[in-house]
Amino acid sequence: MTPRRAAILAVGSELLTPTKQDTNSLAITEVLNALGIEVAVKAIVGDHRDDLSAHVQMAVSRHPVVMITGGLGPTDDDLTREVVAGVMGRHLSEDPALVEQIRERFTMRRLEMPEANRRQAQVPDGARIIPNIRGTAPGLWIPHDEGVVVLLPGPPSEMRPMLEGPVREWLAVHGSPAHLIRRVLIVAGRTESGVDARVQPLYAPWATAVPAIETTILASGGVIELHLSTVAADLSAGRALLDEKVQALQAALGADAVSVDGRSLVQTVGDLLRTRGLTVTAAESCTGGLLTAMLTDVPGSSAFVDRSAVVYSNEAKAEWLGVPPDLIARHGAVSGPVVRAMATGALAHSPASLAVAITGIAGPGGGSTEKPVGTVWLAVADRQSGRTDAVCCRFPGERTGIRRFAALTALDLLRRHLLGVPWTVDWRLPEVMDA
Amino acid sequence: MTPRRAAILAVGSELLTPTKQDTNSLAITEVLNALGIEVAVKAIVGDHRDDLSAHVQMAVSRHPVVMITGGLGPTDDDLTREVVAGVMGRHLSEDPALVEQIRERFTMRRLEMPEANRRQAQVPDGARIIPNIRGTAPGLWIPHDEGVVVLLPGPPSEMRPMLEGPVREWLAVHGSPAHLIRRVLIVAGRTESGVDARVQPLYAPWATAVPAIETTILASGGVIELHLSTVAADLSAGRALLDEKVQALQAALGADAVSVDGRSLVQTVGDLLRTRGLTVTAAESCTGGLLTAMLTDVPGSSAFVDRSAVVYSNEAKAEWLGVPPDLIARHGAVSGPVVRAMATGALAHSPASLAVAITGIAGPGGGSTEKPVGTVWLAVADRQSGRTDAVCCRFPGERTGIRRFAALTALDLLRRHLLGVPWTVDWRLPEVMDA
Repeated sequence: MTPRRAAILAVGSELLTPTKQDTNSLAITEVLNALGIEVAVKAIVGDHRDDLSAHVQMAVSRHPVVMITGGLGPTDDDLTREVVAGVMGRHLSEDPALVEQIRERFTMRRLEMPEANRRQAQVPDGARIIPNIRGTAPGLWIPHDEGVVVLLPGPPSEMRPMLEGPVREWLAVHGSPAHLIRRVLIVAGRTESGVDARVQPLYAPWATAVPAIETTILASGGVIELHLSTVAADLSAGRALLDEKVQALQAALGADAVSVDGRSLVQTVGDLLRTRGLTVTAAESCTGGLLTAMLTDVPGSSAFVDRSAVVYSNEAKAEWLGVPPDLIARHGAVSGPVVRAMATGALAHSPASLAVAITGIAGPGGGSTEKPVGTVWLAVADRQSGRTDAVCCRFPGERTGIRRFAALTALDLLRRHLLGVPWTVDWRLPEVMDA
Repeated sequence: MTPRRAAILAVGSELLTPTKQDTNSLAITEVLNALGIEVAVKAIVGDHRDDLSAHVQMAVSRHPVVMITGGLGPTDDDLTREVVAGVMGRHLSEDPALVEQIRERFTMRRLEMPEANRRQAQVPDGARIIPNIRGTAPGLWIPHDEGVVVLLPGPPSEMRPMLEGPVREWLAVHGSPAHLIRRVLIVAGRTESGVDARVQPLYAPWATAVPAIETTILASGGVIELHLSTVAADLSAGRALLDEKVQALQAALGADAVSVDGRSLVQTVGDLLRTRGLTVTAAESCTGGLLTAMLTDVPGSSAFVDRSAVVYSNEAKAEWLGVPPDLIARHGAVSGPVVRAMATGALAHSPASLAVAITGIAGPGGGSTEKPVGTVWLAVADRQSGRTDAVCCRFPGERTGIRRFAALTALDLLRRHLLGVPWTVDWRLPEVMDA
């Protein structure tokens, strides 16, 4: 059983610069996968006729579903419509109703339609128009004997409603009986190789079983994702199979498994706090507000976050949280006693049930032999139990990565605290067991 | 004069899921562009022999420089080495010295080399080995009559040192006389179409001049980037031409131009503060620490950031910053009087020279007809002048985007305050001129 396989092309020279990513293809992949269509290849092609023609030709000849975004604008460097019609051997002609619709969009904004926009009303023979509710460039659905080519505009705000509306619907009808099913497990506190060593004996045989299950391990800035996927004729049988495998992995990973339904680490922590009616405050030094920014990015976070202090300097730690200056002088700002005093001080200065404190050396400067860049102390103080736990970690990477690692590990330690499981994370320095 | 054009292929099925981006190609593009090599196409291909073979075939036949990352691991689904050798008609043979090097890496970690890793010592005829200082998979430099194919491992930590070391050097020697030169202007406080309307009359003729200059406008979450590029035989003449054009654009954009050397908005603000010996504190409500996290992401930010308060609840605003509760009761937490009281309260509770305050409705809940989601009040208080300015803005998008927009606009208003220029940003609501 093989599902239909698709190619996604993004058109536009601006997508080939060192700073720009194509994000449309991620949204398209999500819709295709949900319909059981696997993405075989993605390509980004500049506004060059020959390159575009070669890639469209290859995609159409190899894949029954071809999704192309961008290059549908009114100007001369917008080549997609013309090149696709050429490759597919279709004649282009102007659709008078479309011209009127485009003209109307301009009239509504008290503008006259530039002549150039007539190009956007050119439709290849046999194509179906996909209305664009947010712009002038209509999409095109061009069926052929062995599949379909779909053209969508490049701006995500125009592309998304078309993709999630008519395109999804038409692809489903046009669909095959095979379903591609995925599951994602989020794992925290572990290195990628550490996770793999534990779960590889489990998942290795699945790859060659019938039906086969594909497993991929991804490390994404301090959090590991385990992706499982399978292709099944029967949707509910496929789902049941993956659910069973996910449970087996979860059992092997124990408390390191954060979620099995795709919920992120911060969403999981937010849900734990919310369901228990608890609130958290943070005292952040090297992360400079990043942990609280992550927590408050969750919709409805005001249920569990009330306030946080960014205490970057020693004076701020003393004046805002009551950390004794002589403690800092004796142990240094990056130390067990100081991170504990930050956590208990944060509790004393807020009504929160829990406080998380972070102090470390994010670099590039400030490191020493004893405390190199990447050394971060983390603590959680609990008002109810009166307990404060602290650990010292060493994170890899550079400034931005270390800060992100530190904030995510703080979230994970808070999660472990809430679940009452040990803080046995891989980043912890074994020689520095506690303050 | 046309520069060499390159194709970049990333290999790996995990790069074709809805959540994963290929980031290696951005680093590769940067190196290629600096050497005057334009990227014609980027593709991401799964671990499937036929797809990979078709794409390698097309890339090698069309582009003199082909960069391929990933698929060099020791397992059966790592196909790159074999497929490329096949397409190029080269025989693969094991390099005994390489086997020993790989074995040594394992020995150093007190492990025995698995037999599968011998695959990584397979080298096509005529290829040069690119040493991998961080992993077992060596890179391969495979020259042919019309160009070169470069294979690099997928993990960025292994790929980067090879790219930035030997590969950059060998590509430069292998180089053509044409240089691709780029400049980036950062613009803040304006919509993309607003920027385009002002600069399009300037740059439009440049596209058809000799030498031609390509201009691209990119909106990236509240900040606009203007990219200029040209191809020149003489590097310094090309640079002088672009510098002249950048100056013309800068003059047209006035204070909206943040930087002309690629420095980000936050780096520019950090530099302004640092050179004037000023410090800033933030009082953040809806952004929840994001502004301070941005400021402290700049290396050396302790020179201008000392502390910040995340005051999410009304109680936190009152207790930590002294915002009078009756002010909140009368005007609401998202109002001119409250944002001003937050800014002056932040100054009163810190030694900073300047305070920035943000309070708004990030959504998805909490909006009303009068104050819909996206409504954000921003203020800057200045200790020296005793002045506090406030504006109300309306930002587009959803929660994460609105928060990012608000933090970036706060940075831009701080920049405008430091430069003594008006706060005429496009997001400002004209009907709400001040508190």
